[in-house]
Amino acid sequence: MRRIYLDHTAGKPIDERVLKDMIPYFSQDYGNPSSPHYFGNKARTAIDESRTSIAKLIGAEKKEEIIFTSGGTESNNLAIKGFAYRNHVKGNHIITSSIEHMSVINTCKHLSKQGFQIIYLPVDEFGIVDLQSLEKEMTEKTILVSVMYANGEIGTIEPIQKIGDLVHSKGALFHVDAVAAAGQIPIDVQKEEIDLLSLSSNDLYGPRGVGALYIKTGTRIQPIMQGGGQERGLRSGTENLPGIVGMGKAAKIAKAEMTDEAERLTRLRDTFVKGVIDLIPESFLNGHPTLRLPNTVNVRFNYIEGESLILSLDMDSVVCSSGSACTSKTLEPTHVLLALGLKHEEAHGSLLFTFGKQNTNEDVKYVLDILPNIVKRLRQMSPLIPKELIE
Amino acid sequence: MRRIYLDHTAGKPIDERVLKDMIPYFSQDYGNPSSPHYFGNKARTAIDESRTSIAKLIGAEKKEEIIFTSGGTESNNLAIKGFAYRNHVKGNHIITSSIEHMSVINTCKHLSKQGFQIIYLPVDEFGIVDLQSLEKEMTEKTILVSVMYANGEIGTIEPIQKIGDLVHSKGALFHVDAVAAAGQIPIDVQKEEIDLLSLSSNDLYGPRGVGALYIKTGTRIQPIMQGGGQERGLRSGTENLPGIVGMGKAAKIAKAEMTDEAERLTRLRDTFVKGVIDLIPESFLNGHPTLRLPNTVNVRFNYIEGESLILSLDMDSVVCSSGSACTSKTLEPTHVLLALGLKHEEAHGSLLFTFGKQNTNEDVKYVLDILPNIVKRLRQMSPLIPKELIE
Repeated sequence: MRRIYLDHTAGKPIDERVLKDMIPYFSQDYGNPSSPHYFGNKARTAIDESRTSIAKLIGAEKKEEIIFTSGGTESNNLAIKGFAYRNHVKGNHIITSSIEHMSVINTCKHLSKQGFQIIYLPVDEFGIVDLQSLEKEMTEKTILVSVMYANGEIGTIEPIQKIGDLVHSKGALFHVDAVAAAGQIPIDVQKEEIDLLSLSSNDLYGPRGVGALYIKTGTRIQPIMQGGGQERGLRSGTENLPGIVGMGKAAKIAKAEMTDEAERLTRLRDTFVKGVIDLIPESFLNGHPTLRLPNTVNVRFNYIEGESLILSLDMDSVVCSSGSACTSKTLEPTHVLLALGLKHEEAHGSLLFTFGKQNTNEDVKYVLDILPNIVKRLRQMSPLIPKELIE
Repeated sequence: MRRIYLDHTAGKPIDERVLKDMIPYFSQDYGNPSSPHYFGNKARTAIDESRTSIAKLIGAEKKEEIIFTSGGTESNNLAIKGFAYRNHVKGNHIITSSIEHMSVINTCKHLSKQGFQIIYLPVDEFGIVDLQSLEKEMTEKTILVSVMYANGEIGTIEPIQKIGDLVHSKGALFHVDAVAAAGQIPIDVQKEEIDLLSLSSNDLYGPRGVGALYIKTGTRIQPIMQGGGQERGLRSGTENLPGIVGMGKAAKIAKAEMTDEAERLTRLRDTFVKGVIDLIPESFLNGHPTLRLPNTVNVRFNYIEGESLILSLDMDSVVCSSGSACTSKTLEPTHVLLALGLKHEEAHGSLLFTFGKQNTNEDVKYVLDILPNIVKRLRQMSPLIPKELIE
């Protein structure tokens, strides 16, 4: 039987229409956009079109506000380090949240070794960043606030516009990691007062190895890589032409189809959550019940070791994860769940199911068919389990 | 008619066999190599195979000595900055050459603003790095020497093994930018005493947006991007799975076919050079006459403005360049030709023709048919030209 893939946060298949558009740029129109000839001109035009599509997806004013990177991690590194290094004379104080992706958290940790002071804002039990803490922590030295649009592990959507208003009212700038949110929910960088916004192509069903950074006109950053001065000097390195074309197409498709697909995924997601909670005792939804991404379900099963549950599901052709793939190599539970106030064992018993374009009602039905029995069987092996749960 | 593409230094078409191998990793086997399930395992296996193929191409001892990046520029940045920051307590002195790629030169310039002392070695009229200068410049504080394997603009191949011996005898480590050389001429990192070696996938007829860095076991560098800790903590960011698979396949093909293809290209190249020099008065080969890459021809035409010649050839369906695409946006002549001792106007009158897999004898014949007339016509427009050249 086919495998049911519910790990779309870790990686997505490419949209076949995206791949189709990329192919000519591998084999036929393979110019270097910096070259002043036929092939170079074709490449430049294609990259500009992609820039336009991405600008439109996030409501940017101009296509020139988009530059391409190698992915979400590089975009976050460039946004935060590039801004910090360029603006350190104005202040050394940066505020972020405690549930950011590792590419934000570890970039901030790196900066803290270089004299920057970093504040990690707490979140409530649902993962919503505490606005009062933000207001309290902001000082004259605060140059940047970095909060993600939505969290890819629990799905919680942050109050971005409120944060943007607050940050600007205090004279700082606002970076948003929108890797998990973009293409799933509408983003409007102008309305939401966003100065820097990170995107990843694969999260839009585009190719891997490509990302983008929105840089609002007037926002000054410095590059983190030196070289030929591509992307207005902000990102050197020969442009990944097929990848950039693919990301542009993926953004175009996302903009056109997002509303319908979000509705469809929300129905799948809610059916799945209701089924799990109804069918499996001592199971709980992590993250915000309503302010959440259409495709993301993080469930906690008490008296369960998540890793065993993943392996059991994998043997039954269901693919899910314990959290961010980027942190799965350590046995530590993800920092996101701990930040919600979960105990270590609760975080360890949590599973992340992320739906995608190819998932259907039948997939949900199949998982709901097998999951309760697997949970029961695993719980029977636990010495701590109350008897009534396994009878 | 079809265009004759002679700008392979700026960008190469992908080998169709490479693209074929990549396709499944876009649409079917799209796991995240960090994930502990079926899809993750498939992705990990594929990446390991690619690592092995690249290790074999350059004679590395172990596949673990290869890590993947987003391209040659990132590899050079990571090698030089990563090494400098990690080893600055041992010394702040770095030696490179004056004909390196901008991603080496500008990385070194960046480091010089941070307290590192950089020496740019001179080269002789053919572009060969001066070994006596190297020996003289090395001090106890010298931690790293960075010299390219071969120069992509003039084709000159450097005496890498001699440099490696010298560098190690003085207790420093050796970085080599092999972006232009790899896949064209044999490289043996062990024999040649190389500690860090940069590669780009596209220069092997693989996809863009991927590169690799060879890091000899025991060589300590620190990452330049923070995040999920992929690639043994040295390069965070979700791995570009199809890209990495493509680069591995490209390396495999290069290793198998390099000898024959180099012979074929050398014949094309030599026929072309002889034809140009014979047919066009006041034309000269830039770079070393024999110690040169099989595919690279840089010719100087006196009394010619290179940019006009490129545009004229482009109109006649021949695509070439004035030097590195990475520096073509400025009107300045490339630093490489100036380092050979050429005057500004001589550098401006130079053209770079780089051959590739798809080029044939007929291509050479066609260009030799039209080039002399174009040069003559352009020279007729120059007021400085001696009368005998245009009659």
